[in-house]
Amino acid sequence: MHSSSPDYLKEGDSFILYHPEGNFLLFYSPGKKFHTHLGEVVFSEKISYGDPVVSSKGETFYILHPNMVDLSMKVKRKTTIIYPKEAGLILLELGVKCGAVVGEVGTGSGALTFILASVVGKEGKVYTFERRKEFLENARENLKRYGDFPWVEWVERDVEVEGFGITGLDALFLDVPEPWRLVSHAFEALKGGRTLGSLSPNLEQVKLTHEAMKKEGFTRLRVYEVLQREIMIRPEGTRPRERGILHTGYLLFGEKTNKKEPL
Amino acid sequence: MHSSSPDYLKEGDSFILYHPEGNFLLFYSPGKKFHTHLGEVVFSEKISYGDPVVSSKGETFYILHPNMVDLSMKVKRKTTIIYPKEAGLILLELGVKCGAVVGEVGTGSGALTFILASVVGKEGKVYTFERRKEFLENARENLKRYGDFPWVEWVERDVEVEGFGITGLDALFLDVPEPWRLVSHAFEALKGGRTLGSLSPNLEQVKLTHEAMKKEGFTRLRVYEVLQREIMIRPEGTRPRERGILHTGYLLFGEKTNKKEPL
Amino acid sequence: MHSSSPDYLKEGDSFILYHPEGNFLLFYSPGKKFHTHLGEVVFSEKISYGDPVVSSKGETFYILHPNMVDLSMKVKRKTTIIYPKEAGLILLELGVKCGAVVGEVGTGSGALTFILASVVGKEGKVYTFERRKEFLENARENLKRYGDFPWVEWVERDVEVEGFGITGLDALFLDVPEPWRLVSHAFEALKGGRTLGSLSPNLEQVKLTHEAMKKEGFTRLRVYEVLQREIMIRPEGTRPRERGILHTGYLLFGEKTNKKEPL
Amino acid sequence: MHSSSPDYLKEGDSFILYHPEGNFLLFYSPGKKFHTHLGEVVFSEKISYGDPVVSSKGETFYILHPNMVDLSMKVKRKTTIIYPKEAGLILLELGVKCGAVVGEVGTGSGALTFILASVVGKEGKVYTFERRKEFLENARENLKRYGDFPWVEWVERDVEVEGFGITGLDALFLDVPEPWRLVSHAFEALKGGRTLGSLSPNLEQVKLTHEAMKKEGFTRLRVYEVLQREIMIRPEGTRPRERGILHTGYLLFGEKTNKKEPL
Repeated sequence: MHSSSPDYLKEGDSFILYHPEGNFLLFYSPGKKFHTHLGEVVFSEKISYGDPVVSSKGETFYILHPNMVDLSMKVKRKTTIIYPKEAGLILLELGVKCGAVVGEVGTGSGALTFILASVVGKEGKVYTFERRKEFLENARENLKRYGDFPWVEWVERDVEVEGFGITGLDALFLDVPEPWRLVSHAFEALKGGRTLGSLSPNLEQVKLTHEAMKKEGFTRLRVYEVLQREIMIRPEGTRPRERGILHTGYLLFGEKTNKKEPL
Repeated sequence: MHSSSPDYLKEGDSFILYHPEGNFLLFYSPGKKFHTHLGEVVFSEKISYGDPVVSSKGETFYILHPNMVDLSMKVKRKTTIIYPKEAGLILLELGVKCGAVVGEVGTGSGALTFILASVVGKEGKVYTFERRKEFLENARENLKRYGDFPWVEWVERDVEVEGFGITGLDALFLDVPEPWRLVSHAFEALKGGRTLGSLSPNLEQVKLTHEAMKKEGFTRLRVYEVLQREIMIRPEGTRPRERGILHTGYLLFGEKTNKKEPL
Repeated sequence: MHSSSPDYLKEGDSFILYHPEGNFLLFYSPGKKFHTHLGEVVFSEKISYGDPVVSSKGETFYILHPNMVDLSMKVKRKTTIIYPKEAGLILLELGVKCGAVVGEVGTGSGALTFILASVVGKEGKVYTFERRKEFLENARENLKRYGDFPWVEWVERDVEVEGFGITGLDALFLDVPEPWRLVSHAFEALKGGRTLGSLSPNLEQVKLTHEAMKKEGFTRLRVYEVLQREIMIRPEGTRPRERGILHTGYLLFGEKTNKKEPL
Repeated sequence: MHSSSPDYLKEGDSFILYHPEGNFLLFYSPGKKFHTHLGEVVFSEKISYGDPVVSSKGETFYILHPNMVDLSMKVKRKTTIIYPKEAGLILLELGVKCGAVVGEVGTGSGALTFILASVVGKEGKVYTFERRKEFLENARENLKRYGDFPWVEWVERDVEVEGFGITGLDALFLDVPEPWRLVSHAFEALKGGRTLGSLSPNLEQVKLTHEAMKKEGFTRLRVYEVLQREIMIRPEGTRPRERGILHTGYLLFGEKTNKKEPL
């Protein structure tokens, strides 16, 4: 039986302050005040996930536990990030599970790094490679705000030039502008029969990576696009949201064979 | 540094036998033969993920490591199952991570059960509830073929009548025809501020569950549909696959507040 | 053999002034000047569709012949309008062709009125019904700018209260918030076996209209949604436009039987 | 006032024989019998669109007036055809209206030919070009079954080699595997400022045609894909149809400038 006693927030815990007109990711500090257009909110000494908080203007907010969509979407961005609609499928296609040892290039703002780190857990390992120091530092800061992830290895490295420097990965994902330049190195880093994935906004990029994968001994290549629509359920009626995202990118996946040659 | 020595398959290990014209999920047994329309394949004593195997008709197959799409889609089905395009988003929206304690009703054929079990790992816990013994047994068999998951609790129970009997869940997912009937019980089972999710093929079901969630103290309700298209990259050209799945269901998510009353 | 001599624009002719950074619907008047952020353009005495015009800032514009997308999308709007992705399918589902006698409620801003009028031509007839005088006047002005359409009958009338007052229509389209209230009248106005169509943003509206049509002797009911994505072909790559319209409305069609009773 | 007297079918008139389990395109002949799995149907001497007909097994069918979707989709096919979701948009983008003079290559099975012919009417003109005699003959037969279309010019010709041989077209559509090879000829055939359209299943085709259009003096190039989903409204609930068409092709449009050179 799991405890149903209130789980009080501790100093530094992340939470969502939610109101139909506002959705903020904050970090708990007793007595801290937060100002919104709906009035000021003060967070008391004893507060639990799920609790209501009333603002100075009489508006009720709720303290929610941030899920992985919240935390990955609300990283401080210095790059475009991978969206949940893609990140979810990446986890399944790459077989990222608790205890897995996975790799990622580039780190970007750390949105996927955070998701990978959450799923593999402390008995797993995430190697995240990034060429640009400022991106790596920002991503690291992002994750530090979310908790302690000593099983994430932050590697500042130009993989195209230097290779990965590791082998035996259970899964590897490439989120770089020219993934095809890393395919040969990716072959070395991955275990046999495991999945390499990449995301590219343009079809030309996908085709080049696809071709490189075929040449370097990857098989079962497949490309997907994922669309997500929000459906609005309102008193005046039910319909999809009128405007939104029509395209983020194409996902390409394939498995490493043990023959590094054209298949 | 992770080992790059060949990872030989052991008796009972699952693998994908892949050829562009065939994609089979099998379980390893040395010397075992497998018959396909592309000839007979024999699995030798020492075989690693990524290895090629040549059939009696001279066709080359590859031994791939099954990912979570393979394993969840290839359960023996007695029910419709949750597809990867939805399962991936469910993981992120529910915040299912390594070590989490999560619940699911109903078990169905165990496709999502397997995914949840893979992600939460041995320090986590999956409670899966199913009313129909034959479904529960089939799902249990499905997971047994994939490995040992002692952290899955298989519960034969009519949750609508008896409730969950547990509390303190980090996340809960409902895949039943009438999820609205379980919302009140779900409130009791979940920790505060955590996410309840459900999947329904029809909009009327979503609306009833949406209404029940509003009445029973859930907030930040949101509904999504997810579409996935495969893009074919072939010598003759690049285009989406011509026919396929246009709809599976609508996903509804919301967070439990600590006030079980209409919000 | 059709003439290939230059077709000079005449006073009042509509045209598109096009530049990759601007797309304007204008009406020709010799010597007229038009100011854009890319400089001033002057339209000379002899100008043909397809001709280039250079602005005062040295930018080349082209004089294009407006198509039905241009003209319908660029009406002066006092209401939301029907988009080309829906209007095209409406023409085919309703069998609107040259010479047809068709009806439409409400006129709105006249976007669909214009399309219907263009297709049925002078041997056809368009009856357009609108309750609100200001909408009717605006739509009429919109069409007057596009040409002379004496075969359009502009009817200021509350069809729900007064009925259509005509019979024998080859096709009828309802673009009103509560189409179900007009179904019984629509039955009277349409010829047997012909198609009634409607567009509604919300599913609840569609369901009510669907039900009314079943009750009032319509058959072969069908509902569609149409999505259109633009694909960008640019030097940096090919991909769908990132953001845009995800939903406008649901189209409902059905045919009148000669039995005005529940089928 | 339009006649509301029953419009009796005449010998040879097309009609839809409709039952929820069957949807047949037939041609009227008094006393004719038609056999279905729901029993035999006999068509009496006096029958009107909208009338019910009861089969020998007691099932009620309805006599519906075929719309343009029915007639275009039910041509006898020797080729793939253009679907309504695309044909509708083509009409609007090309500005095909009553009285227009339009061209089309290739004729294929005549589905689009029929639609163009219906819209331009007897004061318009459709030039349809097809290299393969058997396709042209089949398409011609298809239209003959639907009525008399003397304003359709059936041209057996290899346009790539011989050009169009006409000029002054108001609009032109290319439905051939290699539309880029016809762009230069299309420039000659079209009036200035008018629209050239094409449909291609693969992106590589679109890119080649796009490039050819830019080189040959076309401007305002745009590419679209159109998706259509059917929404099922049934007693058990409302949802999109589960499986269906995910892709037919990409539509490319652009307008002819009067400068046949790279823009």
